[in-house]
Amino acid sequence: MSDGLMMEHDDLWDKLNEECGVFGVYNHPDAPQLTYYGIHALQHRGQESAGICASNGESFSYHRGMGLVTEAFSNNELGKIHGRSAIGHVRYTTAGESKIENAQPLIFKYTGGNLALAHNGNLVNANQIRHQLERQGSIFQTTSDTEVIAHLIARSGYEIEEAVRESLRMIKGAYALLVMTEKKLIVALDPNGLRPLVLGMIGDSYVVASETCAFEVVGAQYVRDVAPGEMIIIDEDGLRAERFAGQTQRAICSFEYIYFARPDSDIDGINVHLARKELGRQLQREAAVEADVVTGVPDSSISAAIGYAEAAGIPYELGLIKNRYVGRTFIQPNQELRARGVRMKLSAVRKVVEGKRVVMIDDSIVRGTTSGRIVTMLREAGAKEVHVRISSPPVKNPCFYGIDTSSREELIASEKSLEEIREIIGADSLYFLSPEGLVDAIGRDDDAPNRGHCLACFNGCYPTEIYEDTKNCTEK
Amino acid sequence: MSDGLMMEHDDLWDKLNEECGVFGVYNHPDAPQLTYYGIHALQHRGQESAGICASNGESFSYHRGMGLVTEAFSNNELGKIHGRSAIGHVRYTTAGESKIENAQPLIFKYTGGNLALAHNGNLVNANQIRHQLERQGSIFQTTSDTEVIAHLIARSGYEIEEAVRESLRMIKGAYALLVMTEKKLIVALDPNGLRPLVLGMIGDSYVVASETCAFEVVGAQYVRDVAPGEMIIIDEDGLRAERFAGQTQRAICSFEYIYFARPDSDIDGINVHLARKELGRQLQREAAVEADVVTGVPDSSISAAIGYAEAAGIPYELGLIKNRYVGRTFIQPNQELRARGVRMKLSAVRKVVEGKRVVMIDDSIVRGTTSGRIVTMLREAGAKEVHVRISSPPVKNPCFYGIDTSSREELIASEKSLEEIREIIGADSLYFLSPEGLVDAIGRDDDAPNRGHCLACFNGCYPTEIYEDTKNCTEK
Amino acid sequence: MSDGLMMEHDDLWDKLNEECGVFGVYNHPDAPQLTYYGIHALQHRGQESAGICASNGESFSYHRGMGLVTEAFSNNELGKIHGRSAIGHVRYTTAGESKIENAQPLIFKYTGGNLALAHNGNLVNANQIRHQLERQGSIFQTTSDTEVIAHLIARSGYEIEEAVRESLRMIKGAYALLVMTEKKLIVALDPNGLRPLVLGMIGDSYVVASETCAFEVVGAQYVRDVAPGEMIIIDEDGLRAERFAGQTQRAICSFEYIYFARPDSDIDGINVHLARKELGRQLQREAAVEADVVTGVPDSSISAAIGYAEAAGIPYELGLIKNRYVGRTFIQPNQELRARGVRMKLSAVRKVVEGKRVVMIDDSIVRGTTSGRIVTMLREAGAKEVHVRISSPPVKNPCFYGIDTSSREELIASEKSLEEIREIIGADSLYFLSPEGLVDAIGRDDDAPNRGHCLACFNGCYPTEIYEDTKNCTEK
Amino acid sequence: MSDGLMMEHDDLWDKLNEECGVFGVYNHPDAPQLTYYGIHALQHRGQESAGICASNGESFSYHRGMGLVTEAFSNNELGKIHGRSAIGHVRYTTAGESKIENAQPLIFKYTGGNLALAHNGNLVNANQIRHQLERQGSIFQTTSDTEVIAHLIARSGYEIEEAVRESLRMIKGAYALLVMTEKKLIVALDPNGLRPLVLGMIGDSYVVASETCAFEVVGAQYVRDVAPGEMIIIDEDGLRAERFAGQTQRAICSFEYIYFARPDSDIDGINVHLARKELGRQLQREAAVEADVVTGVPDSSISAAIGYAEAAGIPYELGLIKNRYVGRTFIQPNQELRARGVRMKLSAVRKVVEGKRVVMIDDSIVRGTTSGRIVTMLREAGAKEVHVRISSPPVKNPCFYGIDTSSREELIASEKSLEEIREIIGADSLYFLSPEGLVDAIGRDDDAPNRGHCLACFNGCYPTEIYEDTKNCTEK
Repeated sequence: MSDGLMMEHDDLWDKLNEECGVFGVYNHPDAPQLTYYGIHALQHRGQESAGICASNGESFSYHRGMGLVTEAFSNNELGKIHGRSAIGHVRYTTAGESKIENAQPLIFKYTGGNLALAHNGNLVNANQIRHQLERQGSIFQTTSDTEVIAHLIARSGYEIEEAVRESLRMIKGAYALLVMTEKKLIVALDPNGLRPLVLGMIGDSYVVASETCAFEVVGAQYVRDVAPGEMIIIDEDGLRAERFAGQTQRAICSFEYIYFARPDSDIDGINVHLARKELGRQLQREAAVEADVVTGVPDSSISAAIGYAEAAGIPYELGLIKNRYVGRTFIQPNQELRARGVRMKLSAVRKVVEGKRVVMIDDSIVRGTTSGRIVTMLREAGAKEVHVRISSPPVKNPCFYGIDTSSREELIASEKSLEEIREIIGADSLYFLSPEGLVDAIGRDDDAPNRGHCLACFNGCYPTEIYEDTKNCTEK
Repeated sequence: MSDGLMMEHDDLWDKLNEECGVFGVYNHPDAPQLTYYGIHALQHRGQESAGICASNGESFSYHRGMGLVTEAFSNNELGKIHGRSAIGHVRYTTAGESKIENAQPLIFKYTGGNLALAHNGNLVNANQIRHQLERQGSIFQTTSDTEVIAHLIARSGYEIEEAVRESLRMIKGAYALLVMTEKKLIVALDPNGLRPLVLGMIGDSYVVASETCAFEVVGAQYVRDVAPGEMIIIDEDGLRAERFAGQTQRAICSFEYIYFARPDSDIDGINVHLARKELGRQLQREAAVEADVVTGVPDSSISAAIGYAEAAGIPYELGLIKNRYVGRTFIQPNQELRARGVRMKLSAVRKVVEGKRVVMIDDSIVRGTTSGRIVTMLREAGAKEVHVRISSPPVKNPCFYGIDTSSREELIASEKSLEEIREIIGADSLYFLSPEGLVDAIGRDDDAPNRGHCLACFNGCYPTEIYEDTKNCTEK
Repeated sequence: MSDGLMMEHDDLWDKLNEECGVFGVYNHPDAPQLTYYGIHALQHRGQESAGICASNGESFSYHRGMGLVTEAFSNNELGKIHGRSAIGHVRYTTAGESKIENAQPLIFKYTGGNLALAHNGNLVNANQIRHQLERQGSIFQTTSDTEVIAHLIARSGYEIEEAVRESLRMIKGAYALLVMTEKKLIVALDPNGLRPLVLGMIGDSYVVASETCAFEVVGAQYVRDVAPGEMIIIDEDGLRAERFAGQTQRAICSFEYIYFARPDSDIDGINVHLARKELGRQLQREAAVEADVVTGVPDSSISAAIGYAEAAGIPYELGLIKNRYVGRTFIQPNQELRARGVRMKLSAVRKVVEGKRVVMIDDSIVRGTTSGRIVTMLREAGAKEVHVRISSPPVKNPCFYGIDTSSREELIASEKSLEEIREIIGADSLYFLSPEGLVDAIGRDDDAPNRGHCLACFNGCYPTEIYEDTKNCTEK
Repeated sequence: MSDGLMMEHDDLWDKLNEECGVFGVYNHPDAPQLTYYGIHALQHRGQESAGICASNGESFSYHRGMGLVTEAFSNNELGKIHGRSAIGHVRYTTAGESKIENAQPLIFKYTGGNLALAHNGNLVNANQIRHQLERQGSIFQTTSDTEVIAHLIARSGYEIEEAVRESLRMIKGAYALLVMTEKKLIVALDPNGLRPLVLGMIGDSYVVASETCAFEVVGAQYVRDVAPGEMIIIDEDGLRAERFAGQTQRAICSFEYIYFARPDSDIDGINVHLARKELGRQLQREAAVEADVVTGVPDSSISAAIGYAEAAGIPYELGLIKNRYVGRTFIQPNQELRARGVRMKLSAVRKVVEGKRVVMIDDSIVRGTTSGRIVTMLREAGAKEVHVRISSPPVKNPCFYGIDTSSREELIASEKSLEEIREIIGADSLYFLSPEGLVDAIGRDDDAPNRGHCLACFNGCYPTEIYEDTKNCTEK
């Protein structure tokens, strides 16, 4: 996504979807309010449900609801949440399985008291652990990985810090995790740092969030990114950080840079908008083409398009316009109307593209249907040539860390050659950014070395064990 | 507005607001559906209420509701509207006066049958006519000008075409008007063409709309702009156009180009995005400055910022990011939280502006408060210098044609000098586009001569009589 | 209806429906609140829409909404209505034509200022006047009679009192009417007093209402019933009453006593519950039968059943129970489920009726379908005999004064003999109260003479001219 | 409650509240629909939340929502629930703790598959078991007893029947319990039969419900009451009943007869309306008084009032009328308005009570405030004398089996003498039914022996151990 714009879930288009956003604050008089604004700033990471749980030091108050933050908290539910610590969560929309039961934070009572968990990511061994727990008599109310973590903590028998530590050592996969008790806030990131998680301060109070854009909104100062395999305990004695994992290897999801994160966020100190712009520049370097205008698919590809245009010395134009008001309750045109040309979401701007050779930048191609539609749209608006440039490599492998990729058969790049894809989408030329170019470009602006990216969906090299029949580089 | 993005009403910012959007279709099997998509594409012109009325040739079916099109038609109301002709309307939000009674199309029964009216604009002699009608025993249920027009038609005594013609000759001001009877669709534009109105076709069926972007959405072909002082009758005999006004002088509202219209619309054959980009180029020509980056206030100033950057050879960046999810139901931070730095709507991107000399493009300054806030935001994010460039001249006079400008005392440019405004908003430098530059730039890309613009809010020269104590060029 | 219970609209049963309820208060600091409670107490008279308009002496504030009072005013709309005078209205649900446009009070602006009207009843010459007005150029936004009255007032040219007086002399039919201007409240009742309307006081402030039950709720003292053909002007000079009609003849709708009014209301000084009980006693006198238990169809026939039981010396029992939770949003059983015996609204109590000879009291039979279903239900629960006694005469003629009777062909008593009806509903015996018994019984408890009842639906003698092909006693 | 009427939760009055209603059906093609109608018929037992879970033999589909059944299932949620077996639940409203998390049926996954539980009642040893489970590592998401039962079943290790049997032997208190797996429906009632539970059939399919009124609605035939200490397994092999408890002693909550159950239900073969009528007759026998009319507080005391009137030979009248439309969203009069006499819920009927000696029947006095208000209301309406007769003994002890009695200090009868209470409520005389009279009367009509009633709230003799400092007859 680019420029903070494209955030609603888009079920007509073949975009990837990410799991969630988390936000937490410890010891601040406005903890629930700040959490509200914090998860609101992370709304692009999930629109299915939203929740906030606060602790007043002795007990919890909380609310979870369906929909956007503003929908879930539309009836003054925020006014009933009190406490100086709080964690919040937004969850993304999957098809058909929108249940309030899955909304987070999950709240549990166990022998040690109350427990609230907010989790972004996906465990690869959740099913294994779950079956083991069930055989021991555990019951589950959700299908979420997070409930597995809660059971592990409750079964541990140790006090909370050791219980969390022990649990973290049993789970594998991607997790940016917030655990709140009445008196503590515990923060943990998986050993590969697959999901972003940052630490900041508001005055003397600590805050954590999935992205730095949430810090800007609540007036927090960025301190640092949480490290892979790190566990941080925040309580009345202050903050203690430790490594719970013996071996760590950063492998942050590269799609955070390409598509998920808000452009005003910094991940690992690298601004997302600037990284995307570099992706565009790199793309131009790798795949220059004679053209008259450069345009990006809004909102996800604006930054890359600007970068491409700058590098190429070709004007960047708004050749495609998105209707902001197409939301979830929209009445979709039926087939007949669609055939008649009724298009609600995106328009090509005739005066911009008519008679022109157009470079169209998009961030990714998943199933290919959307790309094909947009190329057609540009041609119908008079474009003489349409050259498609994708600011990421071909997606050939499924993700097991929380991104809802289609199954492998649906991934067009897994089944088709570049030339076949070009033909299918009807472009005059097509190019995907190279994996090397991707890695180089992300860190370039910052002179940052390659700090480690997960490229598994491109090259199949998964940074963790996975319990499926998939090629896995780390196992070699 | 730029790139079709900023469309929700923004009561914290000091933007102008426009009246409405209209859409109509004659003799098409999907008339109500097309009208739904049409007014949805015009949603940026009004979010207070939406309505559709259809005629099946003998009677009307209709629905009007509050809020966005998707909200007003959220319970299958569209399914109950049937007919081969339809007109629709979206209305903008004013503070406090959101009443369903004011939603359009207005529907009346009179001696000739049924009448539906959808109107964009503002009459300057509505009160005079209204009082006259009241003295003759008329009653009014709304405060809208449109009801005045309906009374004039009903009182005329002539059959509908002559009744409308006679009525149009009595009203003065701005109006893009759709009148539907059971069997006819009548379209009229005021003699100055103050509001945009375009004619198109879907197959053999005629459509009209406030902006061409609605044609793209419904798959209609653009035919031509409705001419100032023109009345068009569409019925089973086809389309007949005539001039009802003896003397016409085009004076289209220049803010349609600057701010209101969607960037993918063409007005008078000129694309709005390209016109805005030219405004940015012209602005650079008039007020160049040494700087490192150019940024635009989203979404309203993106096109102009791109133009300025291109002309200056300085990179265009996303230095300001808007949160898409700030809607009407959002819980606003209280004063204390705001003082703590909680900002929900807009963020400056630190990595983009830190240590940089920033050119910040905005489309207008009305009261000055928003501009001041954004300058502060950029400085807090580390901008070394902030040079504000406004892609329109100073707004010094109220509008009487349907734009909700503040009263003259609230217009900062009416009371303060350029230097005073610069100090108030805290910019290092400030420049407004010249009126000549504005007019030149709008038509430049198209090699279009100046077809006539209303510049009254800048120079006080109102194209019509107005019935208030205001300087009026046409009266000289 | 009996005991204040049955009030929701019941589209499965063949009940009559009445028009509306009105409430007004002049010069009280809590006028809008009292009006809210007042129309809430009159909710049984209409559930389609509710509205309140208040005057602060100079301008109006108002709200109208769909549904119950509590639904229409669910979002603090009441808090936005201010003034020391107010009128309110509840409107009944008709099938399919539920439009906010028809909600009352209707608000108009005319040459004399603002006008609010709340009307209960139905005019018989509305169409004639309407067509005349349309020919003179009037436009209509609703199909309601009330808008006709507003036009007449506005066209009059006289000041408000004389304008209302003149208008009343032009309209014919049933009306209990409240007209509010900024400074006055005018109350009028048609020359036959077809609809109930009462005057009361709260301290020094005057109140008017359709029924006295609204007085109890707001703590008002009953003063007197408004007289047929009376117009009352309440303003800062106090209250002035006058007769606007030369000739008056009370003919209050007898169904107000039989079915519509709340049992705790008094009409013309006669308590409705006690009147109904007398109807039951009279019914027993006219049609005694050997039986074991008496039961009434809830809630409409409880009082009459108690009266019958007392007169007969047979125990009164709850042999039929109504489910209170069957509301408008209820999911109806489909045909198959209904055939399987799924019944949501009413249950027969087996232990009460099994093996018993049952007298079942109902207030009326309109189409006969409901009565048949209830008889079947009682038999299936084991009743040995079912003797149906109806506490009103057979309904043979349509009502033109605001009651939604079926057309004549649907009125079972208009087409069938007593014996035929008995067979259709499957009763062992059937008897309708005689018209003479009805009139005698209503006034008996109070030793009141017959003050004049409209019995047109029973005997076809309409108290006014009617503009249809109907026998009309007054024309003889 | 009487005549099925008073069912909405009434927070202004000092009524008791009961826990819940349950309904289940095994192997019927319309199982979810029948369950919908079934819990709708039990709506008077709980209005906080409603839920239905169905099994198609292999998996569950379910929905739970807040509010009435019609509210919780207002968006076609029923259409998404499929299966030939289903259980449903309605839950009552407690102040402030309305959380969707507490809605039932609770759904769990455990090693044996899926489990759905619907529970009416309250366990007295839930906390003890819960703490034990937590020490073993269990986590809890709700505060409900039902989750404790689910954990016990999951931990058992045995297959489902034995697991339920074992669990039932560990829990103590009141429970009418439905347990559904993919293939079975298990029904259990506590050894004292504290809550009602009945078994019926629709054709060949078994149904269970809290009350027989649900059978009437779905067209089911009553088979028998579930016995205390009985467990019934229904699966593809048919129905098997067994006693899981060695020793059983029926002690059904007497308030089911006095107040909770619908008057058309039979409990233990005794009709509730007729039982209440006998309570009224007995009350008259114990405490006759010279009077002119008998009236009951609607809706809860109508049957008893009819019985009292019959026994006394005094007319039964509707002297108090309840407004049916006072629901949860009602705007309450503020103190000032209330002082002015604004009363929304209940009105005294002046014409009925004026100048009369009134016997006012109520079913119970808990805190005494409501009774005082009603006596005042009757006096203000002109009653010469008000004699209060209560159709139950004084409530002196808290309930531990699911009824939300106030704490002992709030129970007026626990602290005050009869004469003190009479003075506080302002009655001319006051009498409570004797415990012996209560027990005698309930079974009289049916010639039923005393089958065992829980009278603990009257006499402090609790039928089970209780884990609090309370006198307990069974421990003696």
